[in-house]
Amino acid sequence: MLDIVALGTSGSTPTKERNLPSFAIIYEGDILLFDCGEGTQMQMLKFGINPVKVKAIFLSHTHGDHVIGVAGLVRTMSMAGRQDPLLIFVPSGYESTVNNLLVFDKALLRFPIVIKGVRKGKVYEAKSYAVYAFRLNHTIPTYGYVFKENDRLHFVAEKAKKLGIKGPMFSELQMKKRLKVGGRVVRLEEVSWVEPGKKIVYATDTRPSKETIKAAMGADLLIHEAAYASSEKKLAKERKHSTAEEAASIAKQAKAKMLVLTHISARHREASVLEKEARKIFKNAHIAYDGMKIHIR
Amino acid sequence: MLDIVALGTSGSTPTKERNLPSFAIIYEGDILLFDCGEGTQMQMLKFGINPVKVKAIFLSHTHGDHVIGVAGLVRTMSMAGRQDPLLIFVPSGYESTVNNLLVFDKALLRFPIVIKGVRKGKVYEAKSYAVYAFRLNHTIPTYGYVFKENDRLHFVAEKAKKLGIKGPMFSELQMKKRLKVGGRVVRLEEVSWVEPGKKIVYATDTRPSKETIKAAMGADLLIHEAAYASSEKKLAKERKHSTAEEAASIAKQAKAKMLVLTHISARHREASVLEKEARKIFKNAHIAYDGMKIHIR
Repeated sequence: MLDIVALGTSGSTPTKERNLPSFAIIYEGDILLFDCGEGTQMQMLKFGINPVKVKAIFLSHTHGDHVIGVAGLVRTMSMAGRQDPLLIFVPSGYESTVNNLLVFDKALLRFPIVIKGVRKGKVYEAKSYAVYAFRLNHTIPTYGYVFKENDRLHFVAEKAKKLGIKGPMFSELQMKKRLKVGGRVVRLEEVSWVEPGKKIVYATDTRPSKETIKAAMGADLLIHEAAYASSEKKLAKERKHSTAEEAASIAKQAKAKMLVLTHISARHREASVLEKEARKIFKNAHIAYDGMKIHIR
Repeated sequence: MLDIVALGTSGSTPTKERNLPSFAIIYEGDILLFDCGEGTQMQMLKFGINPVKVKAIFLSHTHGDHVIGVAGLVRTMSMAGRQDPLLIFVPSGYESTVNNLLVFDKALLRFPIVIKGVRKGKVYEAKSYAVYAFRLNHTIPTYGYVFKENDRLHFVAEKAKKLGIKGPMFSELQMKKRLKVGGRVVRLEEVSWVEPGKKIVYATDTRPSKETIKAAMGADLLIHEAAYASSEKKLAKERKHSTAEEAASIAKQAKAKMLVLTHISARHREASVLEKEARKIFKNAHIAYDGMKIHIR
């Protein structure tokens, strides 16, 4: 199972409808948070995700709207008796800012919290997926994240059988890539095919950037900020944000399959305007809303 | 107008139904917050109170569940262009903890924030009300707060007229307490009566205490914590909280007019049990819920 849940889709200030920034990726039981604005733990309760079970938090940058929720979340984890370590990723050099979020009732934190400074490249590796960071273009050091599921090898049972592959020979072939069977060398690719792992990309806050295009190439889902409308391009440039059109252009250039626009400024109560602008450039564009759930696998 | 709005009524961890601790007192346009748990600004939006307009925040103590909301609230105020100073009251000695809440985007805070250390006695005085602090009994230094509206003097027009009081003589009499009119000394109390100002008392987190009884004497409303049921008295004692019965007993001894129970532990999804227990001792007891509004005047 690979689900994405939008927990908070507002810009820097919350509205009645939109909570502060956070997205969850839920993959085979692992809950990963991307940003953790104030109120994220309550949004998780609201949308049926257990906040105590979060495995890792990936922070894009340390502006308050993206990180303040960490303070209350770790408190709740501790009160619930969590013992598993929590990993918190933050742009390298900003580790102490995260530490500042843990000052409340420090004595109460009874489980390990590991704060890791992020530079570009692979930052986290699990059994069947990895998370990579790439540099964004904002007012302070900011990173986007790529969630990449491992590619999966599938054997074509019929063909394998025909060539005499059976039992432990499958794993041997998988390891060695080629195997001598009945006087003939069987190559792995003859009897198998590779299903590419799913790829989700999270990019906020940022100006449109080449790094994002590269990171999001062929992504199943690109979550990109769209704080502004095209009429506000000047503001977007000044404040180092993106317009909906700019986000759509990134999705198009990256040949992404789907685009979700988030970090919607409070001034855009009627966010459908942004969606319309984006769809002129990239058809499969959708404005995020709190509680939006995207089922990828 | 004097309204009390329950913004968050949970204990240390939020639930789907209850946000983290905060109450608002709205008095003639002034918005005062008592505690400011995570998500308080969103609760204000939800219940139609402008978070940018808060005049002062009175923090009972610095456990995270009561204070973390300050971080995001001041950020939102700044982004909205607030210029008025914000007063934050916190138990004396814990000023730096509040300061830690302001570390995010400090450069962004473009209005003055005045942090005041609280000791018992009057802590804030406005034109027509004052706020007093009194010591509670919790695991760290904790204060309860009394919101006290000024008493109001009303002249009995008919009687005053009969005794020859008119025009500027009213204010002269009010100032001097007695006035010679037509050869006779008129005492202020002969021609006027005093309407006692309303009194609201906020007491959480705490064991039941004599200080609370004294502070809440004759209160129009006592907001008292009731984290536990009577069957959990041992826990309440250990963790320095109160049971619903204990809170009711405080209200009874203080001859309060109304009791609202708050800081309801997440284990009490069926909070009506607590209400039942409290009402055995004090009839006008009510369990708080998020969004509860009490109109006093």
